[in-house]
Amino acid sequence: MIARKDVDAFFVRGLPMCLPHLSVDCVVFGFHGADLKLLLMKWKTLDLWALPGGYVPRRESLDQAAARVLRERAGVERVHLQQFHTFGGLARKERVARRLFAGLHLDVPRDAWPFSRVVSVGYYALVDFWKVRPKADFLSDTCAWYPVHGLPPLAFDHEEIVDVALDSLRASLDSPTASAKLLPRRFTMPELQRLHEAILGRTLDRRNFQKRMLDRGGLVRLPERRTGGAHRAPFLYRFEARRPRVGS
Amino acid sequence: MIARKDVDAFFVRGLPMCLPHLSVDCVVFGFHGADLKLLLMKWKTLDLWALPGGYVPRRESLDQAAARVLRERAGVERVHLQQFHTFGGLARKERVARRLFAGLHLDVPRDAWPFSRVVSVGYYALVDFWKVRPKADFLSDTCAWYPVHGLPPLAFDHEEIVDVALDSLRASLDSPTASAKLLPRRFTMPELQRLHEAILGRTLDRRNFQKRMLDRGGLVRLPERRTGGAHRAPFLYRFEARRPRVGS
Repeated sequence: MIARKDVDAFFVRGLPMCLPHLSVDCVVFGFHGADLKLLLMKWKTLDLWALPGGYVPRRESLDQAAARVLRERAGVERVHLQQFHTFGGLARKERVARRLFAGLHLDVPRDAWPFSRVVSVGYYALVDFWKVRPKADFLSDTCAWYPVHGLPPLAFDHEEIVDVALDSLRASLDSPTASAKLLPRRFTMPELQRLHEAILGRTLDRRNFQKRMLDRGGLVRLPERRTGGAHRAPFLYRFEARRPRVGS
Repeated sequence: MIARKDVDAFFVRGLPMCLPHLSVDCVVFGFHGADLKLLLMKWKTLDLWALPGGYVPRRESLDQAAARVLRERAGVERVHLQQFHTFGGLARKERVARRLFAGLHLDVPRDAWPFSRVVSVGYYALVDFWKVRPKADFLSDTCAWYPVHGLPPLAFDHEEIVDVALDSLRASLDSPTASAKLLPRRFTMPELQRLHEAILGRTLDRRNFQKRMLDRGGLVRLPERRTGGAHRAPFLYRFEARRPRVGS
């Protein structure tokens, strides 16, 4: 169950501290095995998953609010969050919000401020899967990775938010920045190709891919090879040290 | 002077109708001569120019609000508006808002809702310069085109908004979509090059540019040439009919 003091803090003292009608939602991408994965939270007592999201305090910028929400709700810190789109349709959120809070068995008036129209600013983060240790907050049963191409049903309009975030990520593949954030420091060409395939959702021709990556520049081939696999040991690469950050 | 009823509508009846703390701002780009131009409004009694912007009514989506603001405030209709970034810093707007309204000699309390923190959603539009007839609204002395590289001092954080919009426009130059919206239906290669140069803010090599544009595809060379100039008559081009819209 959720502590009464946390409920009060949110519904009673929350509004004077937060901008009404405004929230942030965070889409956290990680690459694991051959899958692009997404960080989701399961709300207590409901069979619905959601992105880590929250309201915007009056004393925080949007960027600050997104970073804090991700830290407090999912335990994810020190990642670069990139704003990608603001969702401001009329139909979003109200109904599912009511279901969510009803499922939590909280005694909340029907006209409480979190049930009103909300415009949400979407941020995405590209993280090294192995460096993140997700943990759930007091509103959630669990916080876990899911493959992007096999998501459970999501709350609110979070499926649309994920789709738009994926479009932004695909559009950013022309530069090495996104791959550099999602891969470990040293990687093989097949691993880089699998990452592109996971993001694009389709297979790519091996020779063309390798040629395009090498022509583009920014890759450094290392003297050692990856050993231990069943195939011929592939070369290891890293990205050149001075690379631009996403969005800057 | 501004009519008392308009002031009341805005300050007294405005808040219950609008989402507080949220606005839209529109960056309208047009191409004229060799200049990329921007549509600006001059507020009455103040030497400050601003982007056409406004609050978001509770019954309008963000997209609807941006289209209506552009129509009501600048007389610009039937253009495709592309959301590009949401500006949510803590320092934005309050102080200049006070100056603006003070300059209008309106009897408005200092804690009126338009003076509180505002998060603004930025949209840009690419329009055919010759098809738009800007006209000012009741808050403005005039609404006019200014060259992007020679703007007057702008209100609020509108200079930053213009910079970010320009970055988005530059990033979109890889596809022919943006050029197709800014140029007349038929154009010459030098005109296309001047457009790219105006957006990028630097000169480009003529031969490389022509080769890159033709290699990229999507251009159709017409049987006729542009005549009447001092130089050899250049070929006319148009973009292929089925072109994607910006942002879709």
